[in-house]
Amino acid sequence: MKTYRQELWFEVPGRRALINITPQVREALEKSGVQEGLVLVNAMHITASVFINDDERGLHQDYDDWLETLAPHAPTSQYRHNRTGEDNADAHMKRQIMGREVVVAITEGRLDFGPWEQIFYGEFDGGRRKRALIKIIGE
Amino acid sequence: MKTYRQELWFEVPGRRALINITPQVREALEKSGVQEGLVLVNAMHITASVFINDDERGLHQDYDDWLETLAPHAPTSQYRHNRTGEDNADAHMKRQIMGREVVVAITEGRLDFGPWEQIFYGEFDGGRRKRALIKIIGE
Amino acid sequence: MKTYRQELWFEVPGRRALINITPQVREALEKSGVQEGLVLVNAMHITASVFINDDERGLHQDYDDWLETLAPHAPTSQYRHNRTGEDNADAHMKRQIMGREVVVAITEGRLDFGPWEQIFYGEFDGGRRKRALIKIIGE
Repeated sequence: MKTYRQELWFEVPGRRALINITPQVREALEKSGVQEGLVLVNAMHITASVFINDDERGLHQDYDDWLETLAPHAPTSQYRHNRTGEDNADAHMKRQIMGREVVVAITEGRLDFGPWEQIFYGEFDGGRRKRALIKIIGE
Repeated sequence: MKTYRQELWFEVPGRRALINITPQVREALEKSGVQEGLVLVNAMHITASVFINDDERGLHQDYDDWLETLAPHAPTSQYRHNRTGEDNADAHMKRQIMGREVVVAITEGRLDFGPWEQIFYGEFDGGRRKRALIKIIGE
Repeated sequence: MKTYRQELWFEVPGRRALINITPQVREALEKSGVQEGLVLVNAMHITASVFINDDERGLHQDYDDWLETLAPHAPTSQYRHNRTGEDNADAHMKRQIMGREVVVAITEGRLDFGPWEQIFYGEFDGGRRKRALIKIIGE
């Protein structure tokens, strides 16, 4: 069995952003030399997400609006978590909707994807350096 | 390490449906010959879901109502994504709630399930041929 | 390839609770002897969740309030599923938001975690004995 590990680092200037990381995951897969197996990609922070969906700008704005409706950032006083000095309780909720991780099949050395699948890092509490993890196992 | 790959195809006549695919996953597992490992089952389309829950008709109707409350289909003009000519922005949201994929343990050649676990394909934008992927790794 | 399997049992006295199971998962990983691979941790019941987030009491209360807003327990008659004699339809919804499972990378014999990641069992329909599954594969 082969395994391969790589971190991706991000520093999003604003509070929220969705970043397509499919090219970096493909590159990691090539480096790994794995032909058949699984790749796990997960946020290493609990106010961020890794998910698979469409790379369409309008949809990403829709996601942002929708997540704000389901778990609004303000007023920050509505969340007990923010009494600890944080203002990011909403980000912990948004991340649960969008998910922590994806697991993708590797077949013949490639990400075994449907026609529109793309992998995104979803930042919901930016302004500092944060990481995602790529872990590949297979042979 | 053994690996096995199979696609499942669907064509849901209406917009939305939940389809129990546990028998097909079990059949794939038997074909794979894997005794110990993991099976990944994922939607290959970004307006569909694979998830695990109960095979109870009333619950499935509840899910449909609930997802419509959280991310209504109409008015379609409320979503920027639909300005691209699509009318399925709500389906991209519903799929995030229900999830893209499940990973299930394989123990002694069987899906290592609790008493009520069943695997479903969740279609939120039907009317055309779409796929789910089964990928099995183990030995 | 090595594999390891362990069940965790819970009996939550009330309806809902979030329980940190990171120590038990670490212990299972040590017993497995796996140095490089993946660990799957999943709820074996469809009204419970396994997820990764912060071990902060205020946040857990926020999650409870928030899930009640998105999928209220009462009135129980609002859900068709409850006509079967159950009163736990809301728990089936809450579990979809929080997720069934997590997959965690194993690197050099340890859970490959970011600084605040902790694994939780989320019970949304307590009062009886229920299980989570730990399945480890790797070498």
